[in-house]
Amino acid sequence: MYPIDERNKVRRLPERGAYDRDSIYPVLDEGLLAHVGFAANGQPTVIPMTYARDGDDLILHGSVASRLLKIGSEGVPMSVCVTFLDGLVLARSTFNHSMNYRSVVAFGNARVVDEPAEKMAALDLLVEHLIPGRTGNARASNRKELGATTVLRMPIEQASLKQRSGPPGDNPADMSLGHWAGVIPMTTQFGTAIADEPCMDMPIPDHVSQYQR
Amino acid sequence: MYPIDERNKVRRLPERGAYDRDSIYPVLDEGLLAHVGFAANGQPTVIPMTYARDGDDLILHGSVASRLLKIGSEGVPMSVCVTFLDGLVLARSTFNHSMNYRSVVAFGNARVVDEPAEKMAALDLLVEHLIPGRTGNARASNRKELGATTVLRMPIEQASLKQRSGPPGDNPADMSLGHWAGVIPMTTQFGTAIADEPCMDMPIPDHVSQYQR
Repeated sequence: MYPIDERNKVRRLPERGAYDRDSIYPVLDEGLLAHVGFAANGQPTVIPMTYARDGDDLILHGSVASRLLKIGSEGVPMSVCVTFLDGLVLARSTFNHSMNYRSVVAFGNARVVDEPAEKMAALDLLVEHLIPGRTGNARASNRKELGATTVLRMPIEQASLKQRSGPPGDNPADMSLGHWAGVIPMTTQFGTAIADEPCMDMPIPDHVSQYQR
Repeated sequence: MYPIDERNKVRRLPERGAYDRDSIYPVLDEGLLAHVGFAANGQPTVIPMTYARDGDDLILHGSVASRLLKIGSEGVPMSVCVTFLDGLVLARSTFNHSMNYRSVVAFGNARVVDEPAEKMAALDLLVEHLIPGRTGNARASNRKELGATTVLRMPIEQASLKQRSGPPGDNPADMSLGHWAGVIPMTTQFGTAIADEPCMDMPIPDHVSQYQR
């Protein structure tokens, strides 16, 4: 259970909130992309980043480093959000329209990973998070590539999960209005792999053909 | 074209950036969910919100209001990010692994929409953005429901689009390594509508059965 305070408390519809790692980790482990927020001189910025969970830390990779002039050893406060949209919820009233979703918001201070071995391990973790089995089937980064890559590590200080599922929740008085109500479900579909031109005649490896999430 | 400065400039791989409304609006119009960042006392927070584009403004709806104690008439600086993940890009080297994506980051100051007629119009716009044709098939919000809903309007001061598409970009020296390379495409799939139990025998209306994005 993460500590709960004003920063991570689910205020609106608190019955949809959860704070235990058993609820939060599966969402972080299924997600492919995080939206990461940070503030520079009071100006908030949100950008998408790839990430992976390493125990109770998040490893983050993306262009955030180019936006933060300097990240000191104390780190930079960040908010990391991973969301699945599972469906559109159509109610009999406009007011009760909703979405089915799972969304984790995590908070912590992100530091730059400098040590080469830790950085290499973090990059492997990122690739394995996105495509399990891939690190054994691609060339590892060399010293120059490692140097050109910025990796952040954010220990999760606090987090929360907010989620909704199931049918619409309508007011009893609206049930007789005659409007259709229900859910349009949404899922992410992974299509047939498209081989790079020189690989057209190669068998598609198992870690690609059996890709699932 | 939005003005470009340090706030919205695409720094890493700038050839992937665009700043014109003709590139940015289609992504905002296709998206269903935005990740919205704001800062309170230097603490950045990112949460998912539903949104719609109203000309050069974004209408935002979600629990952000419960996190911001007070939004003055001058508004609150926000960053709004809408991202599509279109595919996983597997290169011959770990370093050249990437994603195909389209991501818009918009900046502006968000104000609370107070005036009832403007608020009603904004809520209709939100519902129509998510499910075109729905407002004529659901009860409109009454005065009490309007009062219980917080809607924000954020004129887009600046925005940028960053995108990548196509096959992996490998180093020439890596082409002979024998690793499979290519793209695992990703799309959002909308499933067959699930009728709420009392609607089981009703025909599914066109705006639901023909739902597409």
